[in-house]
Amino acid sequence: MKIAILPGDGIGHEIVAEAVKVLNALNLPLEMNWADVGGTAYEKHGHPLPEATLELAKSSDAILFGAVGDWKYDVLERHLRPEQAILGLRKALGLYANFRPAICYKELVNASSLKPELIAGLDILLIRELTGDIYFGTPRGRRTAEDGHFPGTEEAFDTMRYSRPEIERIAHTAFQAAQKRGKRLTSVDKNNVLETSQLWKDVMVEVAQQYPDVALDHMLVDNAAMQLVKAPKKFDVVVTGNMFGDILSDEAAMLTGSIGMLPSASLNDRNQGLYEPSHGSAPDIAGKGIANPLATILSAAMMLRFSLNQPEAADRIEAAVQKVLEQGLRTADILSEGTTKVSTVEMGDAVVAAL
Amino acid sequence: MKIAILPGDGIGHEIVAEAVKVLNALNLPLEMNWADVGGTAYEKHGHPLPEATLELAKSSDAILFGAVGDWKYDVLERHLRPEQAILGLRKALGLYANFRPAICYKELVNASSLKPELIAGLDILLIRELTGDIYFGTPRGRRTAEDGHFPGTEEAFDTMRYSRPEIERIAHTAFQAAQKRGKRLTSVDKNNVLETSQLWKDVMVEVAQQYPDVALDHMLVDNAAMQLVKAPKKFDVVVTGNMFGDILSDEAAMLTGSIGMLPSASLNDRNQGLYEPSHGSAPDIAGKGIANPLATILSAAMMLRFSLNQPEAADRIEAAVQKVLEQGLRTADILSEGTTKVSTVEMGDAVVAAL
Ligand SMILES: CC(C)[C@H](C(=O)O)[C@@H](O)C(=O)O
Ligand SMILES: CC(C)[C@H](C(=O)O)[C@@H](O)C(=O)O
Repeated sequence: MKIAILPGDGIGHEIVAEAVKVLNALNLPLEMNWADVGGTAYEKHGHPLPEATLELAKSSDAILFGAVGDWKYDVLERHLRPEQAILGLRKALGLYANFRPAICYKELVNASSLKPELIAGLDILLIRELTGDIYFGTPRGRRTAEDGHFPGTEEAFDTMRYSRPEIERIAHTAFQAAQKRGKRLTSVDKNNVLETSQLWKDVMVEVAQQYPDVALDHMLVDNAAMQLVKAPKKFDVVVTGNMFGDILSDEAAMLTGSIGMLPSASLNDRNQGLYEPSHGSAPDIAGKGIANPLATILSAAMMLRFSLNQPEAADRIEAAVQKVLEQGLRTADILSEGTTKVSTVEMGDAVVAAL
Repeated sequence: MKIAILPGDGIGHEIVAEAVKVLNALNLPLEMNWADVGGTAYEKHGHPLPEATLELAKSSDAILFGAVGDWKYDVLERHLRPEQAILGLRKALGLYANFRPAICYKELVNASSLKPELIAGLDILLIRELTGDIYFGTPRGRRTAEDGHFPGTEEAFDTMRYSRPEIERIAHTAFQAAQKRGKRLTSVDKNNVLETSQLWKDVMVEVAQQYPDVALDHMLVDNAAMQLVKAPKKFDVVVTGNMFGDILSDEAAMLTGSIGMLPSASLNDRNQGLYEPSHGSAPDIAGKGIANPLATILSAAMMLRFSLNQPEAADRIEAAVQKVLEQGLRTADILSEGTTKVSTVEMGDAVVAAL
């Protein structure tokens, strides 16, 4: 079982180190290979996703990814910026199915902006299509407008597009995920305005025929953004396109108030996957030893379950994380009265001890 | 001062009737003309935005709009669905500047999903560009994919586009609005992925030169969706494109928990405007006399201020609404312990009495 370890920038190194520590403690036959990615890779090799990193990722069963990005790279041309690495990996490996759980741990209910009764027990799964939509659609660029409100002026443009098979495969992913959970699937689109969304909705309805045990409903993206705030627990599984998924998965994550706890998985059709925390590279706290490594540790658990076929090991990690929370151990981001503040390394050690 | 009154569908008639009652009580020389729009217009005239309605709107100084839509029209072809009326009016009148205040009245703090300390005193203004972006961009449609992941299959596509002058004019609108408020403007885009967003950001930075008294910052749309949940009061004025604005303005509105209180204005460069509540047509409660008319009444106040140059009359309405809240009068949607439940008509009467 070959794992590519890509710590990236900012807190990436610190949090990935703890996840690796936890993986090592499991005594599984894991081959781990490190590589640079993001701003770190740009500085060392002139590109955020060097050829060697991409080759390593392609030839691995799974990628454990930290985080990339820093304000200081904002001045670079877009194709050299750190986040291009993550877009490049998604595209090159065809990682079209992004799993973004939004879970509120009962020990952390108070971290949420929401009233406890609205958030306690939250457990929703957002599935975001990750290789299509306006993220990768061509044509795109700048040109002189030929029509529109101001013909003859400079304009920029992007193309949103989805083909039927692209929607079908993520629909199957979502229906199958719903079958394993509460059997309810909400498909989010903007079919009252977008052609792409109308096809999205049509295909969802068609694929639903094959999953009579799952209740499918449809929600407009603006309404979904509202219902997540109003009554997040009403959702079970949500499926949506790349652009809407970017917005809604972050909104859903922040509802929990503990984004430092939330893992993610991005899979292709061979179950090769990239696993990363839902949060960013937090350059402001990098190197201070205070970042929360639990989202990355839980991402490693998802990796064991989805790409490496080690569900028991995944369960063990998740149980260990639950145990350290019960022990009252907290990094600074989730600290509250009556709990014990620990560093990044201490949190990793505690998870290993709890395994 | 010529006003087109377009009640539309669902609760539209009930709530607009109360706003008209309030306008009449002001004894201003207002010429009001009624017309059908939305599903109601489709049923009577075969089109959601009949020619006569459009002509009336064009020849009026302002439009007071209720709401459109009902599930039963979902079966219609897209161009005949009720919401096409609102898109058609925006386009035909060039209503590019959409003002969406998100205000949390102190009497209604408990209606919010958020903890009181995070929401009490919220007063942010979201400015959404309303006639460009992927809403109106061409080309769009269905075709056989020539490239992408599955060449040769059916695909749907839409075009996101913004020209420089389109971004400039909404930037000026936003900077000027910020000058009249807290002098802070947050521009939201997705420049790490989209060409359109990169031009958006570039133009915002350029226009900022003309407003040295306003502090401009930039936020990615996914982060904005998070920060609205985490710390909404940190925002003052937010400006964004049509698509992101659709999502974020509804998210921001729902944070208050009292979307029945929130008005909106959509203006063109001649200050002709369409005024409507931020909420929808609520067909489930239509005809029951329980809908909250205050968002529509407050929309009428915005109309007096922005399109009819009657700021004192606008102030009077807003003060009257504040007074009925202080009197403890509440429609069902904002009812809480110790307050008095009133009907739609009783609420309108109370505002008139408080004028
Ligand atoms: C870094 C950025 C390109 C990326 C995205 O928009 O997909 C990020 O926001 C995410 O959600 O993983
Ligand atoms: C009805 C719909 C087309 C419209 C939009 O998406 O703009 C609505 O959601 C709004 O925000 O006014």
